[in-house]
Amino acid sequence: MTADEKWMQLAIAEARKGVGLTSPNPPVGAVIVKDNKLLGKGWHTQAGKPHAEREAIADTLRRHSPEDLSGATIYITLEPCSSHGRTPPCTEAITTAGIIRVVYGAEDPNPDHAGRAQTLLESMHIAVSTGIGKAECQSLIRAFAKRQTTGLPWVTLKSAMSLDGRITRPPGESQWLTSPESRAYVQQLRFESDAIVTGGNTLRIDDPALTLRSIAAEQLRQKQQPLRMVITRGNRAALPETAQLFNDAYSDRTLVQENGDLMAAMKTLADADCISVLVEAGGTLMAAFLEAGLADEVALFYAPMLSGGPDAAFAGLPNDTHLHHQEYTRIGNDILLRALITPPVL
Amino acid sequence: MTADEKWMQLAIAEARKGVGLTSPNPPVGAVIVKDNKLLGKGWHTQAGKPHAEREAIADTLRRHSPEDLSGATIYITLEPCSSHGRTPPCTEAITTAGIIRVVYGAEDPNPDHAGRAQTLLESMHIAVSTGIGKAECQSLIRAFAKRQTTGLPWVTLKSAMSLDGRITRPPGESQWLTSPESRAYVQQLRFESDAIVTGGNTLRIDDPALTLRSIAAEQLRQKQQPLRMVITRGNRAALPETAQLFNDAYSDRTLVQENGDLMAAMKTLADADCISVLVEAGGTLMAAFLEAGLADEVALFYAPMLSGGPDAAFAGLPNDTHLHHQEYTRIGNDILLRALITPPVL
Repeated sequence: MTADEKWMQLAIAEARKGVGLTSPNPPVGAVIVKDNKLLGKGWHTQAGKPHAEREAIADTLRRHSPEDLSGATIYITLEPCSSHGRTPPCTEAITTAGIIRVVYGAEDPNPDHAGRAQTLLESMHIAVSTGIGKAECQSLIRAFAKRQTTGLPWVTLKSAMSLDGRITRPPGESQWLTSPESRAYVQQLRFESDAIVTGGNTLRIDDPALTLRSIAAEQLRQKQQPLRMVITRGNRAALPETAQLFNDAYSDRTLVQENGDLMAAMKTLADADCISVLVEAGGTLMAAFLEAGLADEVALFYAPMLSGGPDAAFAGLPNDTHLHHQEYTRIGNDILLRALITPPVL
Repeated sequence: MTADEKWMQLAIAEARKGVGLTSPNPPVGAVIVKDNKLLGKGWHTQAGKPHAEREAIADTLRRHSPEDLSGATIYITLEPCSSHGRTPPCTEAITTAGIIRVVYGAEDPNPDHAGRAQTLLESMHIAVSTGIGKAECQSLIRAFAKRQTTGLPWVTLKSAMSLDGRITRPPGESQWLTSPESRAYVQQLRFESDAIVTGGNTLRIDDPALTLRSIAAEQLRQKQQPLRMVITRGNRAALPETAQLFNDAYSDRTLVQENGDLMAAMKTLADADCISVLVEAGGTLMAAFLEAGLADEVALFYAPMLSGGPDAAFAGLPNDTHLHHQEYTRIGNDILLRALITPPVL
């Protein structure tokens, strides 16, 4: 691993702290280095708050003099912004700080902006290196990039099933198919999501809470509850009024999409600043997301049993959906598969 | 790892060479050690041929003098036999060789014989240690032990499916769901089996060969083709006479069980000296083995896709089957799950 790669890994670790918190912005991390020594680091904590570059510069100036900062290198997971948004351009902050080299991982996913920072910085005699840790940096902003380029959120299908792909327990069995460790991981998935989608049938049968709850108090303080979106094939009036989603403390954060219109539901969520959506639903709605080409990723938990129950975790798909970049992780007695449906363009 | 455990690992590696070759005997390995130096090693190659202990003694005497052998320790994966079978008792060979210590992993699974060698050897002032590498040694003889204690063979259910548990490709798709690496592994599973079971429907639809073929020539020479057993719910006459299994070079090794009688089929195979049976069949027969309590192990290949096809890899199970000792292995782009249906008694 080169020194550049090593420092970029640290910037990536900073960026990860923001996953689930920054929408509609992407999570971004930055570190500032001089003479192979770390001067400061930072991450983008929330839309409207300073970008990662400014956080790293501020962190450096809390510990060091402006003279120390001058002549340093900044490592950023994403190409710095070069135009005025809710905050002034980061390219300006970088040049003002006297930074002489900029290393970034992913290009701005907006094709009109991609590479613009490089041109601008080089015109001011600042050295620019790009593509360090590119795959990881692009993965970090995959939800942001999808909304930026398509106007739709990144959709992850989450399901827990037996090893023969069945979802429902026979009557009398425990309602929990998977282990406590897997259920804790689902809380983390919800933490990283802006909205959770379920179906009208799941609402009727399971009456789920779909809240963040079994998670560190420190994390809970950072984030408001995800939006909940119920997609029903009928209309709103046919859903049970007593459902938790319509009556709990966050009922103002529950949306309903009628007529099973997945595309309209996703546009509604994107318009509500959601970049990442987690679908926790039955087999029919899962399959509908795949058929509509709206799903980007899966997170599938397999419990160590063969079940043969009546309800498939994915029901009635007309075509095979091939998966890419599969990662298998043992979680308790279960196995978790995370994989991409659309192969990443690198 | 103690010295005893280290030498037992070597004996286990010897025993593995015999998996699939020794039926109705178990695979067994042995090494002979003196002053922490390896003198010789051996494995049981075939029923009727010398046991592993005699192979190891012979190997030692090819390289060393009888005086060197005298005073040595023998490590054996299984308790040595103490009665006359097709060969004279190994306890006799051990004492004759002047071996002064016997270390074995698994006890004789026949409850009438278990521990008998220990008693006999100790009465002749030979030191005996047991239980070294016990779990692995017991796993090696699991098929033998099942037939020995129940009169039935060890049954492994093998299936290849999509990640949502479906087996059949839509028309026009490749007939191979899994990768070349997984298909090579299936050849190894067949090599380790005495018989392969399939169903009448699979015979009609797929007309499989169920032969050992894509495997090293050296391995092919060691072993005759596994028996093939077709289990049909109807009678023999209703099966297609043109099927490969009835017409290929090994058609005399094809058996048919009528009336879907799984128990009769397994007894037939056990009577034909089979200890390990591999079931490669559709979802209904797979589930029937689970329902009948006749399945001991699964080897499930998952291809990286969601398929949603009509045919489940396990169809219509009335109850959950919990799995134990799951081992997941990445094979090419697939994942292989091996697990036990009956938890091992240790």
